[in-house]
Amino acid sequence: MIMPGLVNGHCHGPMVLFRGLSDDLPLEKWLFEVMFPAEAKWITDETTHLGTLLAASEMLLAGVTCVQDSYFCMNGVARAYQEAGMRAVLGHAVIDFPAPGISDPSRKIKIVGDYVRAWQGVDPLITPALFAHSIYTCSPETLEAAAGLAQDAGCLWFTHLSETRAEVEQVREKYHLSPVRHLEKLGLLKSLSLGAHGVWLDKGELELLAENQVALVHCPESNLKLASGQARVGDWLSCGITAGLGTDGAASNNDLDMIGEIGTAARLAKLTHADPAALSAAQACGMAMNGSARAMGLGEVCGSLLPGYAADLVILDHKAPHLTPSHDPASTLAYQARRSDVRQVLVNGRQVVKDGEILTVDLPEVMAKVREMAQKVAKG
Amino acid sequence: MIMPGLVNGHCHGPMVLFRGLSDDLPLEKWLFEVMFPAEAKWITDETTHLGTLLAASEMLLAGVTCVQDSYFCMNGVARAYQEAGMRAVLGHAVIDFPAPGISDPSRKIKIVGDYVRAWQGVDPLITPALFAHSIYTCSPETLEAAAGLAQDAGCLWFTHLSETRAEVEQVREKYHLSPVRHLEKLGLLKSLSLGAHGVWLDKGELELLAENQVALVHCPESNLKLASGQARVGDWLSCGITAGLGTDGAASNNDLDMIGEIGTAARLAKLTHADPAALSAAQACGMAMNGSARAMGLGEVCGSLLPGYAADLVILDHKAPHLTPSHDPASTLAYQARRSDVRQVLVNGRQVVKDGEILTVDLPEVMAKVREMAQKVAKG
Repeated sequence: MIMPGLVNGHCHGPMVLFRGLSDDLPLEKWLFEVMFPAEAKWITDETTHLGTLLAASEMLLAGVTCVQDSYFCMNGVARAYQEAGMRAVLGHAVIDFPAPGISDPSRKIKIVGDYVRAWQGVDPLITPALFAHSIYTCSPETLEAAAGLAQDAGCLWFTHLSETRAEVEQVREKYHLSPVRHLEKLGLLKSLSLGAHGVWLDKGELELLAENQVALVHCPESNLKLASGQARVGDWLSCGITAGLGTDGAASNNDLDMIGEIGTAARLAKLTHADPAALSAAQACGMAMNGSARAMGLGEVCGSLLPGYAADLVILDHKAPHLTPSHDPASTLAYQARRSDVRQVLVNGRQVVKDGEILTVDLPEVMAKVREMAQKVAKG
Repeated sequence: MIMPGLVNGHCHGPMVLFRGLSDDLPLEKWLFEVMFPAEAKWITDETTHLGTLLAASEMLLAGVTCVQDSYFCMNGVARAYQEAGMRAVLGHAVIDFPAPGISDPSRKIKIVGDYVRAWQGVDPLITPALFAHSIYTCSPETLEAAAGLAQDAGCLWFTHLSETRAEVEQVREKYHLSPVRHLEKLGLLKSLSLGAHGVWLDKGELELLAENQVALVHCPESNLKLASGQARVGDWLSCGITAGLGTDGAASNNDLDMIGEIGTAARLAKLTHADPAALSAAQACGMAMNGSARAMGLGEVCGSLLPGYAADLVILDHKAPHLTPSHDPASTLAYQARRSDVRQVLVNGRQVVKDGEILTVDLPEVMAKVREMAQKVAKG
């Protein structure tokens, strides 16, 4: 079975370094007591480079040829995707607090601007972008500065949008508006390209997003694991929103497996909408292919097997018992296939996975280094 | 990583023959227009033997060493598990309508009794049992006859229990009681060993089930795909119910992958209970091991790595990028591992999977026959 390479619409690749570090914790404890301190202590351009080499390998081996990855210390991230030969739209994060690589928040727009300009036009596979962390962690001034920089530099900007009920309540308390309506009032909805998660959105907000051509990226496994809630993806589609699919980071998933994510999305939507016909296998596959690609501005570049599109291709082995019998290709991918069925992967015409082995990364060395670092991280 | 073999608490193995035949359909259309006619036309002892050889292979390769499988034409099913070398508790289905192998429903107790007695004591790995299809498809007389036969023959009996809201409403209309309370009134709750699904149960019913030592088996992926609803597994555990985990049949999942099911169970419970600490990875793994084993009467035989237990063992390869880093074994199995990481499998001390290849079944031949049959089935 030949298919377009899968497109991971929302990811924080370097967080593979923190995979499994702590699970099954309440969200605030997980974020403030484990993740933020770990990031403050361990994240540098060197470690994001290492983590991203592992993330890129995991994704390529699983048939993911393109990713929208947003994090800090993005020079390390961009170098890693470049070395792995993976297509990537890389949003440098902006947040109001001190963060890895941005010890002084007042310098964030300068630092991020330098990153964007440094990576523009360097590699056809690498597209720099901006990622305003969220409406509750970025002031109106920060959001405006980020959108302004995106316009000046000619890049896209993204954000986490209405992921948790607590976040929406916090924004409502502060601005008396939901995150989407707050962005609209600031005049920023027009320029925003992608909102990740979109769990707590009403019908009016979905219509506003559709009107303003803001894409949403669904991250069902992360939403489940963090108990964030259920995104109403069926409504996204019926409102005409560009809908992508993503894994989120490996600290909240805990893998970067888009084939698994397609299956979860297709199954979960049936519960969400109380309808076994909701989000068909073909629709879920479409979200993970051209849907995600459109969300990150690559809708005419990848995610489809059509003339003029890049040769981002995946060949799946069809001979496994769990793939027998196989009737409809989309149903097979959504409900039967696993990442281990991926055998050959090409990105932009270059073979990067051959017979289930990655050609571009020294994986044993990368894994050994990550294991070594993870032991230190676990010690705190 | 060495672990106890996984135990699939609820399955209809031969339904791999209908895998992917129709997806994303409303439940009634799927069941009455696709599945029941396909079963009536195609299910014989010969085809259940063929389908079960594929199902057993798929499960063994994925680290499942024991299954509770219930269907019709069970002589074919039992022969297949015996040949594959898999531990199995095999419930012959009982239903009020004509069914494969039981063209005259008035003969069902006789036919099923013959099956149970024929397989008792034949093979230490094969345990025959009874499966009353459900409270809405079995009259009180049928349920009583089934429970009576189970007592006479000294075998266990199981049923589908409160899987869908429609089923519960139907039973309420007919008997003015919920399925559980109807069983209680009939005096049958005491002898029932296992209820599959248990989606629509209130707290009082859970307490009744716990009191009567009726185990429940959770099938999260099937419940999602058929939009049956969300079982409150956290409440099962807090009520002291023996809780297992199962895949259900491959026509409504569409795989028999217990590692995937553990991940779905652990993630989904966090949504169900709106609590990211609900159903820990260790609890979900426990359901898929000794929990399922206890539900089918094998709690002191398998599902644990302890002195006196059978050598039903699985060795997972730990070197894949998605397993790097790995901190807690249960978290690794629930949130990172995939069935493809299974390398070696032993059942009752006998190696049945070696280096990811099955030793006991001629898999290419079985798959070729299933593909051939599936083409005919698809033509109707």
